[in-house]
Amino acid sequence: MNIIRHEMGPRFSEMVVVDLGTARLLYLSGQVAEDASLDVTGQARQVLARIDELLAREGARREHLVSATIYLRTVGDYAAVNAIWDDWVPEGHSPARATIGARLIDSEYRIEIQAVAAIGNLPSGMP
Amino acid sequence: MNIIRHEMGPRFSEMVVVDLGTARLLYLSGQVAEDASLDVTGQARQVLARIDELLAREGARREHLVSATIYLRTVGDYAAVNAIWDDWVPEGHSPARATIGARLIDSEYRIEIQAVAAIGNLPSGMP
Amino acid sequence: MNIIRHEMGPRFSEMVVVDLGTARLLYLSGQVAEDASLDVTGQARQVLARIDELLAREGARREHLVSATIYLRTVGDYAAVNAIWDDWVPEGHSPARATIGARLIDSEYRIEIQAVAAIGNLPSGMP
Repeated sequence: MNIIRHEMGPRFSEMVVVDLGTARLLYLSGQVAEDASLDVTGQARQVLARIDELLAREGARREHLVSATIYLRTVGDYAAVNAIWDDWVPEGHSPARATIGARLIDSEYRIEIQAVAAIGNLPSGMP
Repeated sequence: MNIIRHEMGPRFSEMVVVDLGTARLLYLSGQVAEDASLDVTGQARQVLARIDELLAREGARREHLVSATIYLRTVGDYAAVNAIWDDWVPEGHSPARATIGARLIDSEYRIEIQAVAAIGNLPSGMP
Repeated sequence: MNIIRHEMGPRFSEMVVVDLGTARLLYLSGQVAEDASLDVTGQARQVLARIDELLAREGARREHLVSATIYLRTVGDYAAVNAIWDDWVPEGHSPARATIGARLIDSEYRIEIQAVAAIGNLPSGMP
């Protein structure tokens, strides 16, 4: 078993990987938009692009996402977030999901997503 | 490693299974009551019955639950939820748990539970 | 695959371990301060000491933490919590993390941490 950390800071790592030998579990930190001044649509797009970017560091893609927790500052943003999310999720590979309303650290943030992914250790990296 | 999705929709799957070969990790979506007009007791019963139903699709039972996050619209419902929960949890097999107050997507929902379970891949399906 | 429960009560276990043979995944219940009358700094210290104590029951240390979800009653406590957290996290071993504002069960609680750790099953217990 091996633990690999990506974008590691003194406070947290953006992604921590548990390598079990035959497969890896990828634990992502709660992701927020780079530009907090965007509306919820723009923030959701940035958060999902960021998740793509983190997964790619382990050769994984959004198809490997197994679970996502979506925190919304305003539950009224649910439909707007789903519009972006539904377009992002690959057909036939939707993860488990929970969406709740919560206060986020920066009052400008409207969405934060925490996720877990899994990927096999075959040479192809395919699940 | 293999990923299996149950009750898969375009937005999310109600349960995503990571099959590691010797064991499976089951990630459940946040479960809410089918009938949101019920009081918290009725909703908690429906949520737990729904978790039983999802686990059964992988031959698992509530004994296999390892972690549950309970989101309550009103933390004042804690005692009412525990009364149902305590009756549901099998003696000697209680999972890790966290319970927090949060806004839920539909204002009628009073409880949502997100969970992870684990089951061995022996023929008997016993952990 | 084997499930081990620590400090098991009828309602929940403080830590549930999924032993996959080559490695163990440790799921911790949401930890709160023993003394809820402390300020957030004191509570954060108690919560982190409690996590150390639970991990030690499986021969694990804070280096093995892979993911933490921090729930704060008041997001304004973020800086105070980070001051304690940053001192606690071992250099080179920071976990994935998400921090959100949420109502906690007891109104005196200011912080609750839910966590997942992973440890290899080599004799040394090293990851």
